[in-house]
Amino acid sequence: MGASVGLALARAGIEVLLQDRDPEALAEAVSVGAGVARTPASPPPALVVVAVPPSAAGAALDLELRRWPKATVTDLTSVKAVPIAQALALAGDPARLVGGHPMAGREVSGPGAARADLFDDRLWVLTPTAETDPARLASVVALVETCGGLPLVLDPASHDRAVALTSHTPQLLASLLAARLAEADEGDVAVSGQGLRDVTRVAGSDPVLWTEILGANAGPVADILDRLASDLVGVRDALRSAADLNRTGADASVPLEAVTAVLRAGNEGRARVPDKHGGRGAAEYVVVPVVIADRAGQLGRLFAVAGEAGVSIEDVRIEHTVGRLAAVVELSVVPGAAAALTDALEVGGWTVRA
Amino acid sequence: MGASVGLALARAGIEVLLQDRDPEALAEAVSVGAGVARTPASPPPALVVVAVPPSAAGAALDLELRRWPKATVTDLTSVKAVPIAQALALAGDPARLVGGHPMAGREVSGPGAARADLFDDRLWVLTPTAETDPARLASVVALVETCGGLPLVLDPASHDRAVALTSHTPQLLASLLAARLAEADEGDVAVSGQGLRDVTRVAGSDPVLWTEILGANAGPVADILDRLASDLVGVRDALRSAADLNRTGADASVPLEAVTAVLRAGNEGRARVPDKHGGRGAAEYVVVPVVIADRAGQLGRLFAVAGEAGVSIEDVRIEHTVGRLAAVVELSVVPGAAAALTDALEVGGWTVRA
Repeated sequence: MGASVGLALARAGIEVLLQDRDPEALAEAVSVGAGVARTPASPPPALVVVAVPPSAAGAALDLELRRWPKATVTDLTSVKAVPIAQALALAGDPARLVGGHPMAGREVSGPGAARADLFDDRLWVLTPTAETDPARLASVVALVETCGGLPLVLDPASHDRAVALTSHTPQLLASLLAARLAEADEGDVAVSGQGLRDVTRVAGSDPVLWTEILGANAGPVADILDRLASDLVGVRDALRSAADLNRTGADASVPLEAVTAVLRAGNEGRARVPDKHGGRGAAEYVVVPVVIADRAGQLGRLFAVAGEAGVSIEDVRIEHTVGRLAAVVELSVVPGAAAALTDALEVGGWTVRA
Repeated sequence: MGASVGLALARAGIEVLLQDRDPEALAEAVSVGAGVARTPASPPPALVVVAVPPSAAGAALDLELRRWPKATVTDLTSVKAVPIAQALALAGDPARLVGGHPMAGREVSGPGAARADLFDDRLWVLTPTAETDPARLASVVALVETCGGLPLVLDPASHDRAVALTSHTPQLLASLLAARLAEADEGDVAVSGQGLRDVTRVAGSDPVLWTEILGANAGPVADILDRLASDLVGVRDALRSAADLNRTGADASVPLEAVTAVLRAGNEGRARVPDKHGGRGAAEYVVVPVVIADRAGQLGRLFAVAGEAGVSIEDVRIEHTVGRLAAVVELSVVPGAAAALTDALEVGGWTVRA
């Protein structure tokens, strides 16, 4: 990610000096155009961007603050409170420290995977402390904007609480559920559908990287798991009571009220998740399901018809089924466009499902 | 779903007699072509398909077994052990009872949403008991195949354990996580990405319907929640220890080993989730990410290029970001096709990301 910052700044004509404790990574970053290698003859930097794993961030921030007595120092670490507290506890000047976290994760890493456009239109959280000089914050805001990012200022604890809820806990829940599949019978796993695929998708993430992230944000994640465990046990107990009542043929509706309450709260929470455009809720789109034969070219013709009808496809999902030759493509469009799209597709010979 | 069975059978030229306690629903099912209304003059059925909610299934199966002393009786209910045990505890003939569950859920219901192709190439689980006459099972297998479905025979308890793991527990975890979002600060929810959208997608489901499903499969779901709660508390405790060690500046790597173990087991379990084609693991595809301007027509041109290159797109996801005008489309293809697709796209002027 450090090399991507270099590329994004170089794109804007900013002079970037690179340093890496791994000479090969440094050479690769230089070769992709992320900047030039810093030498003893290089001028002192005005702004230092620290790109290290969470466990190394506190010490690295402190080191750079002390090494460059006039520079503003920021970082790219995905957790903020612990590294910043570590840096503040050391000798560096807290007025020049502005924590940062670009929300632009990628599954691949290293300078070879760097991209100048990685931050374009992405949120980039900045976490000044009470001791941060406002002029230093302004210069990091300018850095973010130069890189194409959207600066969002939060205090370090608020940032960590937010990502604990929206990123770190979802990762853990997906892994905990998928871990149950690891030991299940083959036949049990075969009977599965889109819901399971969606919920477990992020369970494929790198365990070493995620252990470090979760370890660095351990307190806020543990706080959420406390409440989740309590809710989970409540649902478990309600279902156990219902099972006992079912067995005796009695009415299980009273314990099941607790289950309904969780499902309703889930509806509410789901409605608050920003959609891919960051504003409009997913519920504000209409899904037009179209049957296609599962072969090269069909998708192209489908989208060509949509394009000719002047309809913008906001999202698309392909729903295959086990052993199926045909597939259903779900096209999401704004409500006003659904009728025009359906008409255009039906005129073109497509089957639109009710 | 009952009307869809009627349509699928009618498509195959089978005579279907319909009955519904709601006269309007019956009239609608007849009007869409799912069959004709049964009258006192109608011949006795050879096979009865009961399509009622889980809470009514046991009594309805028993009623039909007693009403039609020669008919085979099956159902479409998404849980099996409780309704079948209820029916067997009543007076009906257990040899003629074959439980069924087509894995073809839809978010809409009622005869107006019925489709003849709903079951095509979908798994349709059948759950005979030790008392079921094999000839009766064979006739329900023939029904499933006539409807286009893929019959899979399981005992009722195995079916319920499988769907508890792959459908009912994922639903609950998604709802429990989304419920935490319902009470979060607005700013916390704003900092979210694709992972949260994926994990919470099914939390939008109908609370009343799902309470009934979960209530009817309460025991098996509670068994899984037992183990999940224990794993969750283990991770919570490990993170709490790590947070305490972090605070004192000590090494937190020992408690975090438990977190790594869960993440690794999650990798293993995720690799077992069947992909949309039912066989090939998701990991066996290569993702080609392409940058597009977010407007009508672009997707059509993109897929047209893929089609001209003879590349079959196995899956597609559109990744937007907050405030972003451009989007990244992730095309999944078999590994051998990635280079050809990338070349064709780059020749066509598209930006394929590294």
